[in-house]
Amino acid sequence: MSKLEGKAVVAQGGGPTGVINQSLVGVVLESREYSQITHVYGARHGVRGILNEDFIDLSQTTTHNLERVAISPCSALGSTRDKPDEEYCEKIFRVLRAHEVRYFFYIGGNDSADTSRIIRDYAVRDGYELRVIHIPKTIDNDLLVTDHCPGYGSAAKFVVQSFMGLNLDNHALPGVYLGVVMGREAGWLTASSVFARRFPDDGPHLIYLPEHNFDFDQFLTDVDHVYQAKGRCVVAVCEGIMDASRTPIMSRLQSREERDAHGNVQLSGSGALSDALANAVKTRLQIKRVRADTFGYLQRSFPGVVSEVDSEEAREVGERAVQFAVWGEHAGSVAIRRTGDYSSEYFLTSLESVAGNTKSMPPGFILGDNDVTTAFKDYARPLIGPLPRYDQLSAPKVKKLLVHG
Amino acid sequence: MSKLEGKAVVAQGGGPTGVINQSLVGVVLESREYSQITHVYGARHGVRGILNEDFIDLSQTTTHNLERVAISPCSALGSTRDKPDEEYCEKIFRVLRAHEVRYFFYIGGNDSADTSRIIRDYAVRDGYELRVIHIPKTIDNDLLVTDHCPGYGSAAKFVVQSFMGLNLDNHALPGVYLGVVMGREAGWLTASSVFARRFPDDGPHLIYLPEHNFDFDQFLTDVDHVYQAKGRCVVAVCEGIMDASRTPIMSRLQSREERDAHGNVQLSGSGALSDALANAVKTRLQIKRVRADTFGYLQRSFPGVVSEVDSEEAREVGERAVQFAVWGEHAGSVAIRRTGDYSSEYFLTSLESVAGNTKSMPPGFILGDNDVTTAFKDYARPLIGPLPRYDQLSAPKVKKLLVHG
Repeated sequence: MSKLEGKAVVAQGGGPTGVINQSLVGVVLESREYSQITHVYGARHGVRGILNEDFIDLSQTTTHNLERVAISPCSALGSTRDKPDEEYCEKIFRVLRAHEVRYFFYIGGNDSADTSRIIRDYAVRDGYELRVIHIPKTIDNDLLVTDHCPGYGSAAKFVVQSFMGLNLDNHALPGVYLGVVMGREAGWLTASSVFARRFPDDGPHLIYLPEHNFDFDQFLTDVDHVYQAKGRCVVAVCEGIMDASRTPIMSRLQSREERDAHGNVQLSGSGALSDALANAVKTRLQIKRVRADTFGYLQRSFPGVVSEVDSEEAREVGERAVQFAVWGEHAGSVAIRRTGDYSSEYFLTSLESVAGNTKSMPPGFILGDNDVTTAFKDYARPLIGPLPRYDQLSAPKVKKLLVHG
Repeated sequence: MSKLEGKAVVAQGGGPTGVINQSLVGVVLESREYSQITHVYGARHGVRGILNEDFIDLSQTTTHNLERVAISPCSALGSTRDKPDEEYCEKIFRVLRAHEVRYFFYIGGNDSADTSRIIRDYAVRDGYELRVIHIPKTIDNDLLVTDHCPGYGSAAKFVVQSFMGLNLDNHALPGVYLGVVMGREAGWLTASSVFARRFPDDGPHLIYLPEHNFDFDQFLTDVDHVYQAKGRCVVAVCEGIMDASRTPIMSRLQSREERDAHGNVQLSGSGALSDALANAVKTRLQIKRVRADTFGYLQRSFPGVVSEVDSEEAREVGERAVQFAVWGEHAGSVAIRRTGDYSSEYFLTSLESVAGNTKSMPPGFILGDNDVTTAFKDYARPLIGPLPRYDQLSAPKVKKLLVHG
């Protein structure tokens, strides 16, 4: 087999993760091992950077700089939300061809896989040999085929640690606490909050996922039940929860708000769901102390909270992508197969099998209306890795001298 | 001097911090060194626990359990928002007397100092020897007399790391990002976001503090200016920002919303400010990508992000409190004096000097309408301690072959 000589381009698409630069640096350093890859270009801001020929030459940076970038959160090349159509992809293809690019690595979610697919199709139609490898990343963990997605474990670790602290906060100052977690259509990240439970009374006591229809009245009944029993209640809610018609609750709230609003103050989205849920608990359950937070962008960018397994796998999928491309695979998406407890291996799946679709949590991972199963915990635990362990005071009660009870 | 024999009671009041249990454990372990302190009781949920005689005997717990609790965030004894009046304090005093308590340690903010003061006054009036020591804690850093407050450094570290990640996120996907930080009347915590700036283009580019009047139009002009120059803008906003009449912007928004709202959906508070600011930027500046988060309760409870200096000082103020009480001081609040770069020492200030008031940032720490000074950085840096350092890619641009520009 003759070696395919030419340049490589690597780009990052979609939302950043805590370990996405591990994949980038994996691509760059592994590419530099092969003389047939004459240069490794980085496209600034995903496919938009290719369109505008906005490249930097990553062959001309130090290994030290790359290793420093690898441990930095968020897409160092810049990202984009552009979803290229056929015309956009044709332009991209022309730029790649003009620069004699023979290897294209796109780190992203299912949209990026779809973009990769279209570009590959152009190359095939044009009879231009271009190897196109999609490298998975998403904190949402919702890509098909692969067992899980690089980026998930670290975001999940942040969510778990957040709920650990928030449970202790709620323990100190009892009331109802609602934490809204990212996840447009799948509850993987919200589900991970279950690991914040250590002691029997620890929260989150209720976990709401978009896979299960969200019923407002049932939610209030659930919260009331926990609150009556424990004197407090911690709730993890996925931002993507949907009603029985599979309409996101969030979109219902937003349109109602927009209809009502006058002047400049409108609900723009971010705090809408948590505020609405908190308000319902406050007014309809007559509970005084109700607090709600939307975790927002901290979940995907917070530095220093990284899962070791996630970080290693993110690096490996980047390096594997180069290996697949160099040794003759023309196109595909790198996927992870779980083999042991815990071990994994890597394989290439077709771009079509990943492009444009998302993977929800299977029914076997969801328990009733508001919890997750042990099967989910077995699945997610190794991806998140060791967690901090905190303690409660363990001391005997003192006998009362004055008051009764 | 004869030794004052009796029990000690320790309690925690107000909002939790990441290191408040260090102070608790400092009190307990140091108390156990002195035979005249016959028992150390912990009151559950602050002064409310004393009122209800809800004590646990911390003499009867292991050192190991205590050391594990010391590194756990949030008030392990439970806290309270009760602000006792004279009658409440009289009841507390009666309980303390019935249990032969001679040492009372209250870990909290300025309200807790005030409660301590009233209880001390009762004891004096009653001719009952009771040593009352207030131990400072607050993430808000707004106690008078002391150079700074235990709890601040760790919360500030969380805020800095958050903005480090959010700046990188905003760098990857440019737009306007607004992060709302805790702080009812003082901007200390929000100001700490300045340490997220490493490279010249790093955010937060604008920092809004309650010490400075917030003008909505000026805010929009500022954001527009940064956005035009850099193509992006990261803003740190204190939740307590006030207009020229010193009315919190938040309270203005809430009343407007409550007036407009129909049905169940009302703004309950938490997301209101960030959503309103984001919406104004979106509609009035016609900027498409605007995101806003309210950091909320994560700031004071997130486990694993702790300043070493803060943690050590929190332990020390707890132990010092016992030392002051045992060696003859009748009442006071433990305070920290900065002596070197960085070193500090501890002294006792009167309860009156701390009770009921708050300390704003001095003018010398505030720069113009939307920034902080180097003097503030010199002040805060040692309290936060070492921070992660992240890197940008450093690689040459590639010459364009097709497009111009």
